Amino acid sequence: RIESKRFPKLHLLGSNGDFFSQEEVRDIVAYADARGIRVVPEFDIPGHATAWFVGHPELASAPGPYKIESAFGVFNPTMDPTKASTYAFLEAFLGEMCALFPDAYFHIGGDENNGKQWDANPDIQHFMQQHKLKNNHALQSYFNQRILAILTENGKQMIGWDEILQPDMPTNIVIQSWRGKKALIKAANKGYDVMLSNGYYIDLCKPAAHHYLNDPLPAGSLKSEKARAHVLGGEATMWGELVSRETIDSRIWPRTCAIAERLWSAEEVRDVADMYRRLGLAALRLEEVGLTHLRNPEMLMRRACNGQGIAPLQTLLQVVEPLKGYRRHGQAITYSTKLPLSRLPDMAVPDAQIARGFASTMAEFLKAPDESRRFLLKLMLENWRDNHARFLRLAEQAPALREIIPISTNLNALAIVGIDLLDMQERGVASLEKRALMEKTIARAKEPVAESELVIVNAIENLKNEVFLK
Amino acid sequence: RIESKRFPKLHLLGSNGDFFSQEEVRDIVAYADARGIRVVPEFDIPGHATAWFVGHPELASAPGPYKIESAFGVFNPTMDPTKASTYAFLEAFLGEMCALFPDAYFHIGGDENNGKQWDANPDIQHFMQQHKLKNNHALQSYFNQRILAILTENGKQMIGWDEILQPDMPTNIVIQSWRGKKALIKAANKGYDVMLSNGYYIDLCKPAAHHYLNDPLPAGSLKSEKARAHVLGGEATMWGELVSRETIDSRIWPRTCAIAERLWSAEEVRDVADMYRRLGLAALRLEEVGLTHLRNPEMLMRRACNGQGIAPLQTLLQVVEPLKGYRRHGQAITYSTKLPLSRLPDMAVPDAQIARGFASTMAEFLKAPDESRRFLLKLMLENWRDNHARFLRLAEQAPALREIIPISTNLNALAIVGIDLLDMQERGVASLEKRALMEKTIARAKEPVAESELVIVNAIENLKNEVFLK
Repeated sequence: RIESKRFPKLHLLGSNGDFFSQEEVRDIVAYADARGIRVVPEFDIPGHATAWFVGHPELASAPGPYKIESAFGVFNPTMDPTKASTYAFLEAFLGEMCALFPDAYFHIGGDENNGKQWDANPDIQHFMQQHKLKNNHALQSYFNQRILAILTENGKQMIGWDEILQPDMPTNIVIQSWRGKKALIKAANKGYDVMLSNGYYIDLCKPAAHHYLNDPLPAGSLKSEKARAHVLGGEATMWGELVSRETIDSRIWPRTCAIAERLWSAEEVRDVADMYRRLGLAALRLEEVGLTHLRNPEMLMRRACNGQGIAPLQTLLQVVEPLKGYRRHGQAITYSTKLPLSRLPDMAVPDAQIARGFASTMAEFLKAPDESRRFLLKLMLENWRDNHARFLRLAEQAPALREIIPISTNLNALAIVGIDLLDMQERGVASLEKRALMEKTIARAKEPVAESELVIVNAIENLKNEVFLK
Repeated sequence: RIESKRFPKLHLLGSNGDFFSQEEVRDIVAYADARGIRVVPEFDIPGHATAWFVGHPELASAPGPYKIESAFGVFNPTMDPTKASTYAFLEAFLGEMCALFPDAYFHIGGDENNGKQWDANPDIQHFMQQHKLKNNHALQSYFNQRILAILTENGKQMIGWDEILQPDMPTNIVIQSWRGKKALIKAANKGYDVMLSNGYYIDLCKPAAHHYLNDPLPAGSLKSEKARAHVLGGEATMWGELVSRETIDSRIWPRTCAIAERLWSAEEVRDVADMYRRLGLAALRLEEVGLTHLRNPEMLMRRACNGQGIAPLQTLLQVVEPLKGYRRHGQAITYSTKLPLSRLPDMAVPDAQIARGFASTMAEFLKAPDESRRFLLKLMLENWRDNHARFLRLAEQAPALREIIPISTNLNALAIVGIDLLDMQERGVASLEKRALMEKTIARAKEPVAESELVIVNAIENLKNEVFLK
């Protein structure tokens, strides 16, 4: 939320009091500018705009009243693109914001408009017939063209998400692709300037390797040099639903360094192991400038352990990561802006380092079994197996850890299976009578607990497949 | 440094660019006020004032030029208390600052004036003769009375360090005692309002117990109820020579909580063990509001370990504390404002928790030797003994750790002695031929390394005395 002097009800009623004053915005822009960073604001319209309607219900396509949304997702409230008053409002408001943000680009969002309020509003339906707008996409393009005129008037270049790429839009806008590379390629070939964010959503807690190997522009994807010239670049995106001041650094850093290297490197730069080695050093340097990505996970562990030593929780977290993608939503807990973010998936970070080491040691072992790797793998598994008893004692006096017990139980069982499999591999036998139970244990270990997952399951499953294949 | 609009050379030439603007000061005062905290500024005069003279050499008692001091200690530059222009300047400057800080109290320092510039200046000597000021104390009192008049004019109550308690000072000033309780008691008995800081210097890195047991006003120290009423309270002081933004929290917290409890509790509240138990919980709560006292030590360890695992350094730091009192100065390294504060004594914190546990277990063991405590003590000592080899491997690839190797060597030797002594104690024999070497090892372990010390030496020495006494 940003302070509007023209329409103060926007930030006063549309926020819980947390908004940036215009003075603060100017400070941020100047601070960024001094460091060669540009600040491009996004004001998402016509959808994702519920907060606007709390103070200004007249902008919406249904009467309201509206309240600030605390749940996450796509909601019905959408601006009414048929009323002259909507554009009068936006002309004044966007004019104010265009003056506040000096950058040449200005983002209008345009994504995830579900069209339900438009479908249900007879006046809007009537307007569409009159203007021969054959569907909601066409209506949104009509709206976007009106907005484009306002931004052009204010000297800005308009950016929107790939939803705004519609047949009737002029090419003097920028398409930012979040749903896939297809829109990017199509738009560039048509002559639009484009930016890529698909594959660089760092809030989804995917491994750095995933982003690093996501080539923004595979060879041959664009038909001409002219089309290639329309590619402005890429942008990593950090959405705020599941981060707090305490966890945001560990979501942004150090993985964003890997994305930066991807976007600035030739396509043949793809050495993941070396990337991770350097990423670990970059993480230390980032800490020196004050970031908390390495410090805060243990702080959250201390908080959860209720004054006790955190070692068993640390050991458990060696192999735990937050659920990836959008899977963290839709589990037992419904997230909202009111839920504290200090639970297991918040302590856990993407790219659990020791688990990654385990997985790569296992992969090497399966390629060429040797004694020293077997010893190492077994040592790690024994430690995870034995951790369970210590974790249970810890959880006795730490209510916040109770919900995590099942994942420690799963790790214990999985580690026992892993040790058993290593023994079978060594003896060159596969005890077929154990197979079903082992597979059941592995399947259970794959189930999320507290919106988190055990990330050594695949390595154990690979070992199992190897043992029972022979 | 604070911005002066009247005399901008003060903050522009007297600082390296790090000063608080008046707007920032107002912000700080308002922020503190909203939380029930008062901000009382100290402008130290006439000594400790070198920075003033960089922009205004005419204020000093010798011609200059002056430069910003980067070393720490007591220096010669001192204001000239004989010139009318000095008072004209101070009247204007203090008037500006009195308006900026709304609190009723105003601190003028007054400490550690070594008088050398006064002794060497014939004009000042002449002035003293004329005014029958028989020594530098009398001259400083003359100066203080002129300052008192200015502050009174500005509606402020003057505070000064106990040096300003001189026979000719009126009693409408506040004496803050830093050198001992004697001045406090003398001043209160004479009718001065008093504050105590002696015993509450948290920058000296003494254990919380030391401060906790420092009764500000032992029973019977003041002769009358009237004198007691002059005691305004106490103040913990955090001087900035040896702290950085990264370490200051671990110097202030959580020990200041123990001081707060001392100052707000009856004298019979003296249960140190229970204080430490609650202090550990308070430390966790303080972390929740954003303080870094628990997070930053490991960050500094990571930085020093150069990308390697920090476990051996952590183990070493279980028994290391920064040198206490003023001992950190005067070792091999000369501190200045330019030295980075990210070395062993900066990673180490006062009140090393595990070492404290070792010492108290040892004390209980020596009182009543039992098998379970012997086992525990031996376990800890074996871990410290064996850590040395791991630490040496770590230091090989971490140049910043090289200077610490001697303390790890000392810990290794001390742990071996401790284990040997526990064995002797168990067998009921004292191998006299080992005594001299053991004492040499203990003596060496007491020597500071990198301005830090091993804090389990006394426990081992007590064990040695017990073994060889029998």
